[in-house]
Amino acid sequence: MKLIAGIIIPHIRIIYMKNYSTIYKEELLNNVIPFWTNHSIDKEAGGYFTCLDQFGKVFDTDKFIWLQGRQVWMFSMLYNELDNRQEWLDIAEHGAHFLKTYGSDKEGNFYFSLDRYGKPLVQPYNIFSDCFAAMGFGALYKANPVDEYAEIARSTFENILRRRNNTKGKYSKIYPGTRDLKNFSLPMILSNLSLELEHILDKKQVDSLIQDVIHEVMEVFYRPETGLIMENVNPDGSFSDSFEGRLMNPGHTIEAMWFIMDLAGRLNDKALAEKAITIALNALEYGWDEQFGGILYFKDIKGLPPQQLEWDQKLWWVHVEALVCMAKAYQISGNERCKAWFEKLHNYTWKHFRDEQYNEWFGYLNRRGEVLLPLKGGKWKGCFHVPRALYQVSKTLENLPVPVSQFNV
Amino acid sequence: MKLIAGIIIPHIRIIYMKNYSTIYKEELLNNVIPFWTNHSIDKEAGGYFTCLDQFGKVFDTDKFIWLQGRQVWMFSMLYNELDNRQEWLDIAEHGAHFLKTYGSDKEGNFYFSLDRYGKPLVQPYNIFSDCFAAMGFGALYKANPVDEYAEIARSTFENILRRRNNTKGKYSKIYPGTRDLKNFSLPMILSNLSLELEHILDKKQVDSLIQDVIHEVMEVFYRPETGLIMENVNPDGSFSDSFEGRLMNPGHTIEAMWFIMDLAGRLNDKALAEKAITIALNALEYGWDEQFGGILYFKDIKGLPPQQLEWDQKLWWVHVEALVCMAKAYQISGNERCKAWFEKLHNYTWKHFRDEQYNEWFGYLNRRGEVLLPLKGGKWKGCFHVPRALYQVSKTLENLPVPVSQFNV
Repeated sequence: MKLIAGIIIPHIRIIYMKNYSTIYKEELLNNVIPFWTNHSIDKEAGGYFTCLDQFGKVFDTDKFIWLQGRQVWMFSMLYNELDNRQEWLDIAEHGAHFLKTYGSDKEGNFYFSLDRYGKPLVQPYNIFSDCFAAMGFGALYKANPVDEYAEIARSTFENILRRRNNTKGKYSKIYPGTRDLKNFSLPMILSNLSLELEHILDKKQVDSLIQDVIHEVMEVFYRPETGLIMENVNPDGSFSDSFEGRLMNPGHTIEAMWFIMDLAGRLNDKALAEKAITIALNALEYGWDEQFGGILYFKDIKGLPPQQLEWDQKLWWVHVEALVCMAKAYQISGNERCKAWFEKLHNYTWKHFRDEQYNEWFGYLNRRGEVLLPLKGGKWKGCFHVPRALYQVSKTLENLPVPVSQFNV
Repeated sequence: MKLIAGIIIPHIRIIYMKNYSTIYKEELLNNVIPFWTNHSIDKEAGGYFTCLDQFGKVFDTDKFIWLQGRQVWMFSMLYNELDNRQEWLDIAEHGAHFLKTYGSDKEGNFYFSLDRYGKPLVQPYNIFSDCFAAMGFGALYKANPVDEYAEIARSTFENILRRRNNTKGKYSKIYPGTRDLKNFSLPMILSNLSLELEHILDKKQVDSLIQDVIHEVMEVFYRPETGLIMENVNPDGSFSDSFEGRLMNPGHTIEAMWFIMDLAGRLNDKALAEKAITIALNALEYGWDEQFGGILYFKDIKGLPPQQLEWDQKLWWVHVEALVCMAKAYQISGNERCKAWFEKLHNYTWKHFRDEQYNEWFGYLNRRGEVLLPLKGGKWKGCFHVPRALYQVSKTLENLPVPVSQFNV
């Protein structure tokens, strides 16, 4: 019995992990994507609606550039990677047209938000608008190689690198010289963007950038004494004992670790992948809410009160990115801890975020895992994390070897 | 029996309301003020610590100008209005010295925050730093008429009026011309500040400003169709159907209504006082959480999801300002609804915000009224709303007529 169990159980487990691939792909194609194709297209004014209630009704018409760029990317990516459906390409081009017409100022800096008809509402103070616009046009160029798309992606990327050390420019409220902290978000995004734009950038530039961001993420922001990644550090990489310096964002770390695993794959660097897996597991254990389940949004590394009033909430992106991260970690390492975490996350996420009544998933839960805002899209949640994660998990677990037991039984 | 009850019960109620005066004064002098005198004075670097944990331990040393100015005001006011204690004046002067040495840039604009030793951290993007600095120096001048204090208060106030229509200046992220909203906060603060600085400003200027802010608050931001006050309106006063335009902050409205009641008292304008009481009662009914009790932090006037993730939390300042508002409303009108609300608020507030273990009150509760952050002071909570409210309630209810029953029994 013992021997038999010892042989059979691993096979059963492997089948089980592989089977998630189908579940996630069906959820993507039959539940989540139809929500966005049915409800988000603004046929009158162009671009996408993202403020959509539980049943897909538009409750606000403002256009947030992060989410416009991300949806262009999403439909281009689906077209490129999953299926050459004309509808998906049309949706991507629809958003790209709006974005290139209204999205940026004369210097090519992307605004933070526009009104429904494309008039600027909030200035280009936020460089992530540029990151997601570049990502969108980069993927669209792969789907439809119009020079202009590559040109926008390339020049926007150059602009990001130019603004890299002072991303907010004149909109920064930080008094220079007293406490000049470096923030984790940009190296984190660049570790993803560098691969996303590889096909349109100079190879040397990509190679050097990749080395750069791996160093930043895995050596500057990573602190060996805690095994965790900080959100903000002093310019010399040391710990800043301030609200910003003590801030921990487990979701950020976990998302970044799958970007690093992808880079490790490209570089064929097994040690880097293993380090990323270890950090991701640390962040999951650190961020998990033992009382109510789910991953906390923010923590203070010294256990002091954080400034963020939303610190104990459970956010969709944190949880779906953790699913991607653990799927990749398991696929790379076969580590049972990664599988156990994947299953724990799957159970929590599908139970609390998935809506039994209508398509797509909720975004914001309170600490107890109850719905805090009954929306499917808003200022920050669009057609991005949920479908990207469903695609990534499906794709990752699909590559698991066919278990021997399938032939044996 | 009925007749006796009919006579006696109102007397008991009147005694009861008047008795809160003593309860609130004792809480102020024996519980709350000692917390700040014992724990907040930075004897080494000057100014006040405000990041204090449940037991008064300093957990962060940054100095936030709102809270520095407010504490100068608080101790000056206690000295002026309650008791000429040298200790209180010394504490006020201690903070004022730090504030005048490090608080502002060369143009007299007050920074948002400094590090422990007074080096600027966050630029003067926020005009409320100036409001609370002016308020502090104004009250201190009353306690100790040093010309410099009046001069700082006066010039800071002029600066506020100069920046009034573009308070954030170059730090504003709003693209001009698309959706230029007016925000309620400044007229609200000015309705209080105009009375606080009356003794150092020109009478004509104060009279004209008072008319101005009453018009703004009670006619521009007030919407007769809902009986409520909006946080943001179009420049012409009309409703903006946007996240900002739909935003409701019941606590803001309630606090502003006691400022207006004070102005009505000064102007001897009974109709204005009654309108303020009606609006305050509307806001309480609108903001009260029927499910868990307490006043919600934010709501959307159309019942849509607000952008603020902290919308369902219960904040100390909202509740203690509501106590002040209903105490004043009852004192002015004798309206039984105001008394009932005062008692309901008293029961909720003392049960949930007051700490049974140690001095001062908690600031941040979740929707269920459980402590969300176990701090007594932080970036936004200092020596201000709780002690001011305790003083205001005590002072207001002390003025109630001595009930006949006290002589009858």
